[in-house]
Amino acid sequence: MRDFLPAEKARRERILAAIRDVYRTHGFDEIETPVAEDSDRLFAGLGGDNEKLAYSLLKRGLTRDDLQAAQEPLDLSDLGLRFDLTVPLARFYATHRAELPTVFRSIQIAPVWRAERPQKGRYRQFVQCDIDVLGEPGPRAEAELLVATLDALDALGLEDGFIRVNDRRLLTGMLATLGFAAHEYDGALITIDKLDKIAQDGVLAELRKRGYTAAAVDALEALFRRPTVLPFGEAAIRRALPENPDADALAGLVAIGEAVAAARASDTEVLRFDPFLVRGMGYYTGPIFELAHPSVEYSLGGGGRYDGMIGRFLGTDVPATGFSLGFERLVELVDLPVGEGSEAIALLHDADVDLAQLLTLKAELIATGARVRLVARPKNVKPTLDALAAEGFTSFAFVDASTTLASLSLRSLTESASS
Amino acid sequence: MRDFLPAEKARRERILAAIRDVYRTHGFDEIETPVAEDSDRLFAGLGGDNEKLAYSLLKRGLTRDDLQAAQEPLDLSDLGLRFDLTVPLARFYATHRAELPTVFRSIQIAPVWRAERPQKGRYRQFVQCDIDVLGEPGPRAEAELLVATLDALDALGLEDGFIRVNDRRLLTGMLATLGFAAHEYDGALITIDKLDKIAQDGVLAELRKRGYTAAAVDALEALFRRPTVLPFGEAAIRRALPENPDADALAGLVAIGEAVAAARASDTEVLRFDPFLVRGMGYYTGPIFELAHPSVEYSLGGGGRYDGMIGRFLGTDVPATGFSLGFERLVELVDLPVGEGSEAIALLHDADVDLAQLLTLKAELIATGARVRLVARPKNVKPTLDALAAEGFTSFAFVDASTTLASLSLRSLTESASS
Repeated sequence: MRDFLPAEKARRERILAAIRDVYRTHGFDEIETPVAEDSDRLFAGLGGDNEKLAYSLLKRGLTRDDLQAAQEPLDLSDLGLRFDLTVPLARFYATHRAELPTVFRSIQIAPVWRAERPQKGRYRQFVQCDIDVLGEPGPRAEAELLVATLDALDALGLEDGFIRVNDRRLLTGMLATLGFAAHEYDGALITIDKLDKIAQDGVLAELRKRGYTAAAVDALEALFRRPTVLPFGEAAIRRALPENPDADALAGLVAIGEAVAAARASDTEVLRFDPFLVRGMGYYTGPIFELAHPSVEYSLGGGGRYDGMIGRFLGTDVPATGFSLGFERLVELVDLPVGEGSEAIALLHDADVDLAQLLTLKAELIATGARVRLVARPKNVKPTLDALAAEGFTSFAFVDASTTLASLSLRSLTESASS
Repeated sequence: MRDFLPAEKARRERILAAIRDVYRTHGFDEIETPVAEDSDRLFAGLGGDNEKLAYSLLKRGLTRDDLQAAQEPLDLSDLGLRFDLTVPLARFYATHRAELPTVFRSIQIAPVWRAERPQKGRYRQFVQCDIDVLGEPGPRAEAELLVATLDALDALGLEDGFIRVNDRRLLTGMLATLGFAAHEYDGALITIDKLDKIAQDGVLAELRKRGYTAAAVDALEALFRRPTVLPFGEAAIRRALPENPDADALAGLVAIGEAVAAARASDTEVLRFDPFLVRGMGYYTGPIFELAHPSVEYSLGGGGRYDGMIGRFLGTDVPATGFSLGFERLVELVDLPVGEGSEAIALLHDADVDLAQLLTLKAELIATGARVRLVARPKNVKPTLDALAAEGFTSFAFVDASTTLASLSLRSLTESASS
């Protein structure tokens, strides 16, 4: 877990504001849930491996007897910190459905916690930016999600970002056509999901070593020889898959591709069909996505349709699909300029300036729309002026016991810093 | 802990943005710390009674043997959720002092957690808005804090707010002059701190019942007969206190009062000297404040100087003073109008409209600067239009299979809702 100093905090907030603005423009609405959820909901099996990384809150008021009687860590806790924003959203929707629109488009921008081993780029507290469409079963939901996500990337200056797309139904259909047995699907998908790490040869070797149906693995090898990432469209999707792909899934992806291309008035390179995209979470039921950018090898986010999850909380199934941006990874790639704000003025004052005079001067400058900071005048002003310029202050003035607003002599900090 | 639906979330964010903007204008900088702090820092005795309300995070990977061996709940945890923003700030400053300005003005706007018993207006997760000035020993720090706080109240439309002010040194000086023994100070202050709840008679009765020096309690009774809240200034402060108040404390309050009055170009009613203001926390060492508003009986925030606390983390004392706004109480009092934003348009579309056409239309409207939401056209549109208007949507249009941007007929939602 990390502290954020002023410059980094401001940088992060600028990026979050840009993302939030795009999502709001696309008709999504921000909500907030508490950081902690009831353990029985948090550990209901919907979070996959992330559940194992969750922090539990110790029950309060436990006695020594309670401790002795406890069988498992979870007995000591009835609340846990959320490890993602999807499980809390499903719980939120189940709680508040009557107060929400029939089709609810949510924004969640908030921290989540996972007890990851400390390593570069992995944090125990990190921010996710999720949008979800709940209550819409068709590809309209995915098309809106993807256009909003791509527009958000544009706002961040990541116009070269693209989204790998697949459908869970095409994946299982592919395995069936290749000759895998039904009981082999889950295991085979876990291995295929390692393509980024161990490459095609590694995947084939692992499948063979584990004794999957040999003819099916051979057929997969033949499929691997086809281009794995293609421009989006029906012909291209069919070319990448064995014959007779799931008709609904195919029609959905084609409709999504056409809508995204039309809305973005762009070529179709921004979506790329990837027949081997798996996405780890078991709860996906339809189209799945993963966000990539040429400048980095790792994924910048992803999502997919999870039609069964809300039913686990509500009792009635509600169609749902979402896209989560990995904010901590985006923030390493992106810097947005500080907006055209008002002037920021540093007043370098002598020690003997009357406090009432000083605060009056500050208030008068604030009233002109400026941001103002008081700084006791140091003997050597150069390092202080440089630091103020680096912080975004635009001008400064020396203030002595006789200075008034009328006599104040403002000098540019940018010139001073560069001189 | 609560969920926030879109309208309430937006309302809260508007108020937070207004507070943040004022504080930034006054030269403060926002920082962020993780929600969890090491237990040995969190439970170092600086949080007073709030430490007892803290949530601890269960250590991960505990075995059954660990549990059996545990003596105390705290043995099971090495992290806890922060119960305020002051202890984390002191830890932050001790960690990052070399990277911060000599005088550091921080903004923290973030949730804290306390295991309060559920009751109206008390929440287990709630937001605090703190500003602090670290590294400045003199009244300049308090004057900047108070002017910034009062300007923030103005921005929220709470111009009638006022701040009760006292100084810890005047309090102990008063008790000494009245004749209390030194060992009686802490206990007497705990009783005097109940003035709001049990009134003067209750305080005197409790002090007598507990056997405090009788002559001192009689002298306090005489002091109570003087007006307890007065316009701010040296004469008024002297009138409210026994003779020979602490000279430094008095001079400091007078300087703060003059500077606030000058900066705000206001009468002095906005600060009120309260000789019996105690503030519960034991770490205060100088001027203390509490924010009040005529419309409510409870405090809306408060703060004070805590010169000894950072030394507990750093080893070297650093002067510090801060003011914390009770955001959850402010948010019950205040509503800010939605800003003059761009148009928000709802497109009520027939079921047979082509998805690519629909998303193109949405994208074209977004490109004009509008916020756009797609809504499947219901049979009876009136309730839907009313809900959209209540959400802040400004206009709508029906979209069928032939609608283009050129043929789109936008109608005002505000007229529709009122008709």
